[in-house]
Amino acid sequence: MHLFTAGPVSCRPEILEAMGQQMFSHRSVEYKKLHRETVDWLAKFLETESEVFLFTNSGSGVMEASIRNCVERKVLCCVNGSFGKRYAKVAEANGREVETINSELGHPIDADALDEKLSNSPDVEAVSITYNETSVGLINPLEKLAKVVKKHDKLLLVDAVSAMGGVELKVDKWGIDVCFASSQKCFGIPPGLAVASVSKEALEKSENMRNKGWYFDFKTYEEFQKKDSTHVTPPIPQIAALRKRLELIDEEGGKKNYLKRRLDRSKHMAKGLDKLGLTLFPQECCRSPTISCVNAPEGMNGLDIYEKMREKGFELAKGYGSLKEKTFRIGCMGHIPMDVVDSMLSELGEVVK
Amino acid sequence: MHLFTAGPVSCRPEILEAMGQQMFSHRSVEYKKLHRETVDWLAKFLETESEVFLFTNSGSGVMEASIRNCVERKVLCCVNGSFGKRYAKVAEANGREVETINSELGHPIDADALDEKLSNSPDVEAVSITYNETSVGLINPLEKLAKVVKKHDKLLLVDAVSAMGGVELKVDKWGIDVCFASSQKCFGIPPGLAVASVSKEALEKSENMRNKGWYFDFKTYEEFQKKDSTHVTPPIPQIAALRKRLELIDEEGGKKNYLKRRLDRSKHMAKGLDKLGLTLFPQECCRSPTISCVNAPEGMNGLDIYEKMREKGFELAKGYGSLKEKTFRIGCMGHIPMDVVDSMLSELGEVVK
Repeated sequence: MHLFTAGPVSCRPEILEAMGQQMFSHRSVEYKKLHRETVDWLAKFLETESEVFLFTNSGSGVMEASIRNCVERKVLCCVNGSFGKRYAKVAEANGREVETINSELGHPIDADALDEKLSNSPDVEAVSITYNETSVGLINPLEKLAKVVKKHDKLLLVDAVSAMGGVELKVDKWGIDVCFASSQKCFGIPPGLAVASVSKEALEKSENMRNKGWYFDFKTYEEFQKKDSTHVTPPIPQIAALRKRLELIDEEGGKKNYLKRRLDRSKHMAKGLDKLGLTLFPQECCRSPTISCVNAPEGMNGLDIYEKMREKGFELAKGYGSLKEKTFRIGCMGHIPMDVVDSMLSELGEVVK
Repeated sequence: MHLFTAGPVSCRPEILEAMGQQMFSHRSVEYKKLHRETVDWLAKFLETESEVFLFTNSGSGVMEASIRNCVERKVLCCVNGSFGKRYAKVAEANGREVETINSELGHPIDADALDEKLSNSPDVEAVSITYNETSVGLINPLEKLAKVVKKHDKLLLVDAVSAMGGVELKVDKWGIDVCFASSQKCFGIPPGLAVASVSKEALEKSENMRNKGWYFDFKTYEEFQKKDSTHVTPPIPQIAALRKRLELIDEEGGKKNYLKRRLDRSKHMAKGLDKLGLTLFPQECCRSPTISCVNAPEGMNGLDIYEKMREKGFELAKGYGSLKEKTFRIGCMGHIPMDVVDSMLSELGEVVK
């Protein structure tokens, strides 16, 4: 089965080989070396001097952690899809007051509206933004939005789950306080690991936070990071795979060239979809390079297209939430050679004919 | 390096092969099949009709989950080592009131003392017990203690992290409400997965719990379990490896024979240590079959013994906490063929001579 999923995605053979390695203790020198190399490489990739932590949980775990460490009372959540909604839900489930700023599905979060909202809500402590809204295949203008958040001097929490490793992300330059992602998206690693950069300001906020729990405590992460370690047992295979991934990026021309190859593949796929007469759901300004949300052609159901493609050996992603039947999605995150993109497009052409 | 660690432990080739498999979507039929087979097999192994959930976190994550779902105000923690202490710390970090019942290091929790404590603390909602206290190589008399807890009609939360898959554990017969473990201990799987049985009573308690968060919500786990799924992306490789492990137990004579082989190996190791003139730290009544906490011989330091054994290619475990220098530990949880046990004993004989 060729995977064009929203994650877990297809992994390169080198990654699978790293996953199958024999174990060692997470308190051994072998682990400490792996830990240090991975966080150093990742910090370089994210262009940050913040601490970069390795988490034994999915990306949503860091979403919860960011609320429990950085929001005492009130957070503003930017919502234009299911994962923006999830951020608000997680904050509420943790007893925090939530304000939201919403955009119509398929439209990006508006910087001016955010500016106005923050001017009217001085008691908001942090703002959450979904960089890449997987559910509708939309990428929000993060750099622009971040400027607004920083103008108001709020903590900026960024869900970069389906963006990190797939599109540009400059943590320090853009002023992101917590920036997290999962292993099973653009890095093309199996699920089970999340990573996050956590700024000094976020760590300061965490210091006096009451009832923040133990598992997700950023300050405990910071304490163990000094020993190239974690307070809970880390998912060693996924970390070894991420280290390998970052090494491969380095060997294959560095971050810039890597991201260019990614973008080229996305453009190639977008052109192919266009040739088939298919249209995309989000506005043209903000179509995600990591996942395309495609409108099902008139008279067709997105779920049927998904099923028919599966029968042909291609696993796409179903439409999400309210768009389940009206759309289908095509992930472009993992290990997908260009000729497989072409075969997929050719088969899809048959299905939507 | 031959691993006699406290976890992560050495894995069988079949397990590593399962870890290195290509990915598939966690919303696909392939995953649903894997999920259902794994939880059914695990429920059978634990002898329970409770729900068995698969968690994207380490065992300590379920420790935190058990507090957030099952304790509104007050918990009684049984403490006779570092992991009992951790349970109390986790409860406090989540803003719960904690009472403890303590035993001297190396002594088991006393059933009569627990009975008396519970008689005097009617407002305790749940009791936590560390089945196997890895830090001092001690196994608590869980079946006996469970009876006391159930007599007082309290929820019973059991940290079975270094016990499940290594010693007997009858969840329903003993009346355990939350019983959790990590993949990287007795099941001999890489870290990144935790599993837990959660009783109806625990789920009922969770139903009305305020501010329990989203990531660890047992009720959300229950909801997705009906779809053979999880609300957060699961660590698919570790689940595939656990499924393989349970299949191997079944093929190789079932649970009873498997546990007997484990116990035989432990006895063989204990005899060997005795022959070397080494003594164990815990009282004779309650020595753990999954990890031995060995007293460093007069005039020797446990850390030196650990280092010398590493130089010989054997990774033991360091002493833990206050026993760091006075003891060293030898794990007996993972994939360790009998001849490797013998080589280890022979080299250890040289080191402590």
